[in-house]
Amino acid sequence: MLPGVGVFGTGSTARVLVPLLKAEGFEVHALWGRSEEEACCLAKELGIPFHTSRSDDVLLHQDVDLVCISIPPSMTRQIAVKALGIGKNVVCEKAATAVDSFKMVTAARYYPQLLSIMGNTLRFLPAFVAMRQLLVEGYVGEMQVCDVRVYGPSLLDQSYGWTCEELMGGGGLHTVGSSIIDLLSYLTGARAHRVHGLLRTFVQQNGLIRGIRRVTSDDFCFFQMLMGGAGSSSGGGCCTVTLNFNMPGSFVHEVMVVGSTGRLVARGAELYGQRNGSKGEELLLGDSGWVGPDVKEMPLPHLRGLSSMVQALRQSFQAHEERRSWARGPVATAPTFEDGLYVQTVVEAVKRSSCSGEWECVEIMSQEPDPNHNLCEALQRNKN
Amino acid sequence: MLPGVGVFGTGSTARVLVPLLKAEGFEVHALWGRSEEEACCLAKELGIPFHTSRSDDVLLHQDVDLVCISIPPSMTRQIAVKALGIGKNVVCEKAATAVDSFKMVTAARYYPQLLSIMGNTLRFLPAFVAMRQLLVEGYVGEMQVCDVRVYGPSLLDQSYGWTCEELMGGGGLHTVGSSIIDLLSYLTGARAHRVHGLLRTFVQQNGLIRGIRRVTSDDFCFFQMLMGGAGSSSGGGCCTVTLNFNMPGSFVHEVMVVGSTGRLVARGAELYGQRNGSKGEELLLGDSGWVGPDVKEMPLPHLRGLSSMVQALRQSFQAHEERRSWARGPVATAPTFEDGLYVQTVVEAVKRSSCSGEWECVEIMSQEPDPNHNLCEALQRNKN
Repeated sequence: MLPGVGVFGTGSTARVLVPLLKAEGFEVHALWGRSEEEACCLAKELGIPFHTSRSDDVLLHQDVDLVCISIPPSMTRQIAVKALGIGKNVVCEKAATAVDSFKMVTAARYYPQLLSIMGNTLRFLPAFVAMRQLLVEGYVGEMQVCDVRVYGPSLLDQSYGWTCEELMGGGGLHTVGSSIIDLLSYLTGARAHRVHGLLRTFVQQNGLIRGIRRVTSDDFCFFQMLMGGAGSSSGGGCCTVTLNFNMPGSFVHEVMVVGSTGRLVARGAELYGQRNGSKGEELLLGDSGWVGPDVKEMPLPHLRGLSSMVQALRQSFQAHEERRSWARGPVATAPTFEDGLYVQTVVEAVKRSSCSGEWECVEIMSQEPDPNHNLCEALQRNKN
Repeated sequence: MLPGVGVFGTGSTARVLVPLLKAEGFEVHALWGRSEEEACCLAKELGIPFHTSRSDDVLLHQDVDLVCISIPPSMTRQIAVKALGIGKNVVCEKAATAVDSFKMVTAARYYPQLLSIMGNTLRFLPAFVAMRQLLVEGYVGEMQVCDVRVYGPSLLDQSYGWTCEELMGGGGLHTVGSSIIDLLSYLTGARAHRVHGLLRTFVQQNGLIRGIRRVTSDDFCFFQMLMGGAGSSSGGGCCTVTLNFNMPGSFVHEVMVVGSTGRLVARGAELYGQRNGSKGEELLLGDSGWVGPDVKEMPLPHLRGLSSMVQALRQSFQAHEERRSWARGPVATAPTFEDGLYVQTVVEAVKRSSCSGEWECVEIMSQEPDPNHNLCEALQRNKN
């Protein structure tokens, strides 16, 4: 039996997610927005019976068994941890910092019977599912290089907000880079152990953000990851990622894996491959045509991935009679909160590298840092 | 009146160059090859009256006024410097080291009345000539990022040779990266002041190179350049270059410049552009169809560029009555030996960065280093 759903957020993801949930048979009982007005407006539009701006009203709602969180990164940890504490299943987006991610991991470990997954939808995109399968089967031979490019228009909101602020989790690296970092660990089965990166904010002001306000989040980001997997030597593969969000009117989403005997390329939602020695590329998985809602703000691979993720959730919950129970199988490849912590750690290492100019190690937090120590660091950072 | 030409080299460039020279009305009087046999064979094939394996026989040939040098990098400096000393005009390919390049610069400065240009043909490709013009005219606004990708099959020769040896000037960075570094300084009007890079040799042995022999030259290279021009601040643009020569059966040559108001992309020999706010890309310069020889080893942009360079040479010499005189105009944008030294310096800085993992400064040599000091360094390097 499918669980009742509560949705946090009134942004473009929430707007797409609710119809997808309904299409799969989920009932969305409650919507939370930062203001009563935003919540009311979207609840009316999407036909959700209850709306609020107080998070507890959704978390404690008796019909809500699954909580979907698509809110600014700085608020995510608080809601996600609380939801698990109340005994709700959680699908949520990335947090703002590694410390927040670590707290989410701790909560998820404490409630292993609850579903807790990160909403990185790229893992669910059929093109990437097929790509991973082909990589496992040895289509490209030994993996050498992954090369990813995402080009698109500005990620900034219309008005000044968290998307403009690096410390609030804004910027191309945090927003889009995160999903690529997660995807690459999914595809290669390896994790980055050293990273190097360069971040830039080319557009610091625009027609809507001006005066004393400045954008601090990156609109261009370029990073390399040296991957080390189980038993891989220092000669392991490397990943290069280029993100450019100063390209209005375009959208490029290309993930290429080159190996010793061939290569695979996902362009948008399509998968192509070429084995060494063959004359040309073959289309391995075409674009079957998107029939869901078309959302300007959300690129097609994410949109389709989201749709596939919702299907997987349906399968996971459908397998059980009890509303809150779920089967691990359909969501076995979904990113866990531990994956979320890894991604956040890489993001922060890339940021450090952009400041230091050096290769930075990716060291996953194993215990929570002393909050007073953090405070000192934050004060120090503000001083500079 | 056109000068008589002597050609050094029997590789693919020489093989293409001779017919192009003839087509423009140049007479090719002499050909040099490393062995009598190679020289004889190609001279017969291309209808060149004189061939030799002794360089002086070409350099001192009375009908030779222009010397074109397309030989392994480690031999280039010696021939180029000697040719200038004998009073011949020189078009040559890159040398193996910055010290060699510096010696060539010294010779070129000493004989300013002689033509001395580096044979980087990309500058002559109509798509890049148009791209530069549009950049100067402000098509993209303020330049932000240049993003270059060159993917192709292995650069290794059939048999073991200099292409396999990093120290002999082999590898993607030296061979192809050089032409890209030169092109980017031509397009942007700026030079790299700091670089960061990563080189890899994924294929160290193959069916033809085995046993105790190993390839040391890179087949994957990835570097970033921070550009500083006349009066540009630290916030200047950056260039990212990805070279991958583990992709048999493919050839991608893409140069993109993204700016504040639009972008330009050269794909192969075609130029596309898009201004912010416009709906799609426009084709700015199409591919007019190549009518010259088709050479498997030489990518189309280089082939076409070579053809345009030979045309420019013809125009340069045609302007004067005297066989050895030439007009600066038609070859004004050709890379000088000073440009060659800059490119070589960047190449070596990228290699250093790949070893150190750090950003390296690009410092152009201003005096020849003590040869004994070099020897010590070389011995040191061999020891490691």
